[in-house]
Amino acid sequence: MSQKVVAVAGATGMVGRQMLHVLEERNFPVKSLKPLASERSKGKSVTFRGEEIPVEVMTESSFKGVDIALFSAGGGTSKHFAPYAAKDGCVVVDNSSAWRMDPNVPLVVPEVNGADIAWHEGIIANPNCSTIQMVVVLKPLHDAATITRVVVSTYQAVSGAGKAAVDEMYAQTRAVLAGEEPVCHIFPHPIAFNCIPQIPQSNAFGDNGYTSEEMKMVNETKKIMGDDSIRVTATTVRVPVHTGHSESVNVETVNKLTAAQAREVLSRAPGVIVEDDPGAQVYPLAVHAAGRGETFVGRIREDISHPSALDLWIVSDNLLKGAAYNAVQIAELL
Amino acid sequence: MSQKVVAVAGATGMVGRQMLHVLEERNFPVKSLKPLASERSKGKSVTFRGEEIPVEVMTESSFKGVDIALFSAGGGTSKHFAPYAAKDGCVVVDNSSAWRMDPNVPLVVPEVNGADIAWHEGIIANPNCSTIQMVVVLKPLHDAATITRVVVSTYQAVSGAGKAAVDEMYAQTRAVLAGEEPVCHIFPHPIAFNCIPQIPQSNAFGDNGYTSEEMKMVNETKKIMGDDSIRVTATTVRVPVHTGHSESVNVETVNKLTAAQAREVLSRAPGVIVEDDPGAQVYPLAVHAAGRGETFVGRIREDISHPSALDLWIVSDNLLKGAAYNAVQIAELL
Repeated sequence: MSQKVVAVAGATGMVGRQMLHVLEERNFPVKSLKPLASERSKGKSVTFRGEEIPVEVMTESSFKGVDIALFSAGGGTSKHFAPYAAKDGCVVVDNSSAWRMDPNVPLVVPEVNGADIAWHEGIIANPNCSTIQMVVVLKPLHDAATITRVVVSTYQAVSGAGKAAVDEMYAQTRAVLAGEEPVCHIFPHPIAFNCIPQIPQSNAFGDNGYTSEEMKMVNETKKIMGDDSIRVTATTVRVPVHTGHSESVNVETVNKLTAAQAREVLSRAPGVIVEDDPGAQVYPLAVHAAGRGETFVGRIREDISHPSALDLWIVSDNLLKGAAYNAVQIAELL
Repeated sequence: MSQKVVAVAGATGMVGRQMLHVLEERNFPVKSLKPLASERSKGKSVTFRGEEIPVEVMTESSFKGVDIALFSAGGGTSKHFAPYAAKDGCVVVDNSSAWRMDPNVPLVVPEVNGADIAWHEGIIANPNCSTIQMVVVLKPLHDAATITRVVVSTYQAVSGAGKAAVDEMYAQTRAVLAGEEPVCHIFPHPIAFNCIPQIPQSNAFGDNGYTSEEMKMVNETKKIMGDDSIRVTATTVRVPVHTGHSESVNVETVNKLTAAQAREVLSRAPGVIVEDDPGAQVYPLAVHAAGRGETFVGRIREDISHPSALDLWIVSDNLLKGAAYNAVQIAELL
């Protein structure tokens, strides 16, 4: 790949910083880096390859001469600025939900539908974190046995809600340990030593009672897998974990796969690591997945309630494969 | 009810102490209380109705003259001592898993199958905590629409593993906050800021890949509901919560129930409180359910992946409705 001018929009956020990390770690051919952020980050700088680079305030003309822009700056920002970037010939890989369901925007997980980047018109969307790790595992099973229905319950880490949310979890945890009342600013209820069945923490619910996070898992799965017939129901839950989303996934298929066959299929799947030796207490864990780019799967069982279904436990780093790592993988395909 | 001589076996444990609490709170007609425990608790005492009562070491003849014995002393102890108690005319309400699937032992959740106590032969089993809170909600739905299949994922509190487990979670939490490595004695992996898809923490897995906790949910549900045709699959997960089990439950039925109909049915169900106003961020939470005897249900939705299914979020206090409270309710039926 030739050297590229790369912008990172939202460079000072949790995912933005991970993007810089991943660009370094994967030796992405960066000719020059342009860290962009909002007014609030004016005067800040980021470190990239040992060099301190001042953050520029993003404007509509920030993208002139930029080849690739990785966006992790929220839906509103992305909705406004991405078209200006695209108009200037820059390819945007956007981590927000702003463009994901746009029929002219490919929604890409490289291991699943990397070929879809071919039809981009300047913007490529990075899927929701919970969806990415699920489809990386579902795709090879779908190819092998044709998935008809998925019932997923998530155990989502607090870093998915940003740095202030992590700070709040730690502050609440300290309060509870000290016998004090936890204080809530970000979350609607205490997240310390609790589970909250609502993601995101504000404006979450649609008329059908599902949250927007749950509907992302329903709709993005179909688009990424390129199969509208896959039916999905999801219950997304925030748990007091720093980083690493876990998912309990029940998968119904047309053709029966034994647990051994599923393990075999998944052990050959790109980006997937099978961790499944429960007798030795080996199964995926959030604390082990944190910091890794792969998706881990274990607790693979034939569902005893259904003639042709599997139960799976899927874990991945929500900031890496769920965001920054997947975005850089997309950029590598360009 | 006439005054009863009541023994509590395992009186110094987390559930045993809750049993004493519940006997007090519900004004159970206790003529005299006999707290029993193992050699390890020799010399300890418990407080009941303001009185300090020394704990007696349990022997095979401890139950002479005792009317009702509430057991929460582990499966082995129960297997050995309960028959001696029954032989002496005492009725045992046992919280362990030792007798639950015995065809001569009723497995009772008063709101669901209270009539089953009629056929006891001296021992009545208290179901698994995760199962109790689920069936309290499933039974009215089954009566209304006939349940065919249940897919459940649990978010189980650490107090279900005992006091040492709670201490370990807090010690690990303090370690992580101090930037130190968490130390594991009780749990196979850190539980602080993590989710562990294995319950119980030792000897958990059967040949089919399910844990014993998961198989309890499968088998006990059928026995309590009195319907072997209900198919259940479960994934049971320990989360860093002190008290209050949460469950994400998908319920397939023969007849379609709308969310409104399900809410209506559940609002009339004994022992159930519907907390379901998601727009106002009202849904069941472990930290709210802790200390309450009821089971809370919310996030009631029509499953968009299935023509006739519901998604539910069910929360209850695992030490109360999941153990002590249910046991005392059974004793009240006697």
